[in-house]
Amino acid sequence: MDKNSALPLVVLAEHFARLPGIGMKSAERLAYHVMSMPEKDVREFSEALLNARKNVHCCPVCQNLTENELCQICGDVRRDASTICVVETPKDISAFERTKEYKGVYHVLHGLISPIDGVTPDKLRIKELLKRINGNVAEVIMATNPTVEGEATAIYISKLLKPLGVKVTRLAFGLPIGGILEYADEMTLYKALENRNEI
Amino acid sequence: MDKNSALPLVVLAEHFARLPGIGMKSAERLAYHVMSMPEKDVREFSEALLNARKNVHCCPVCQNLTENELCQICGDVRRDASTICVVETPKDISAFERTKEYKGVYHVLHGLISPIDGVTPDKLRIKELLKRINGNVAEVIMATNPTVEGEATAIYISKLLKPLGVKVTRLAFGLPIGGILEYADEMTLYKALENRNEI
Repeated sequence: MDKNSALPLVVLAEHFARLPGIGMKSAERLAYHVMSMPEKDVREFSEALLNARKNVHCCPVCQNLTENELCQICGDVRRDASTICVVETPKDISAFERTKEYKGVYHVLHGLISPIDGVTPDKLRIKELLKRINGNVAEVIMATNPTVEGEATAIYISKLLKPLGVKVTRLAFGLPIGGILEYADEMTLYKALENRNEI
Repeated sequence: MDKNSALPLVVLAEHFARLPGIGMKSAERLAYHVMSMPEKDVREFSEALLNARKNVHCCPVCQNLTENELCQICGDVRRDASTICVVETPKDISAFERTKEYKGVYHVLHGLISPIDGVTPDKLRIKELLKRINGNVAEVIMATNPTVEGEATAIYISKLLKPLGVKVTRLAFGLPIGGILEYADEMTLYKALENRNEI
């Protein structure tokens, strides 16, 4: 957008451009789109931004995002609190919930250990996880991504958990369902071979 | 986002998903990103949305978006008001201004004639263009896109303008600079051949 554009539009485009994955061209397009939206919708969008940022906070137990005192999962007595699934982000919880199989609870780290990006273990919610470990917790499932950072974080946390006498497991890695063997990368195929099961 | 997510986050994601080119997955990612933004930035973003929608309006002369009474171009006495460049959207003005060659003024139609989408000529700012035609206007340049709708709109407006005794021109079509002849589509090549110039 150049100096001939109306200033409030330029400012709005700059705000859009600061969001991840939105370049300046898309940001301009979005700013122009806002001009064509009913004023009521823009007001609601504006309020939704403030409302989300102000009223959503971390659940004091599992660190998932919530607007209530406890998140919906921690507040649900039907969930099995003896199994904790440790994930990187709140989005990962949605992925597990979609499977409708997992009945345990979660713990959100809000990141992965990555010294190169300045993310040291003390920046993650690891202390909060350790505090949750008591006689009632039977298993902690490390469900971080199968990346260098995800693996490192899983190993780091499992070393802290094991002395507490809790069983620590890791998600299985192998061929994705519906995937084609020919197109599987070497690491996936290696893991699928290594973790093969008798049928 | 599922029912386990905090409601204000779901609402925010839905607002993002209503923007053009943003799917539900991206919208969720954006909503989560907002949670990690400093509250001050979120407040400014929220205000920028309202501010753009409330304070930006159409210039009464050229229909470009502006926050002032007249847009910057119409309010600039150094611009040549005898030449009007007719464009589809305010964004097109930015494109022309980047060339730094055009010194005339503009007229924004805010759309193109497209009966299939319910856009009839009366929904465009054509009346406002006709009102601008007086003895001082020497030329109107039709600068709509080289598409079916752009061509139809250019022809429709030129037929209204010619009886008013004003010169109507159309942008040249041909090979783009830096383009490769081998990859040019037939219509572009046909136009480049038809409009060839002696060297």
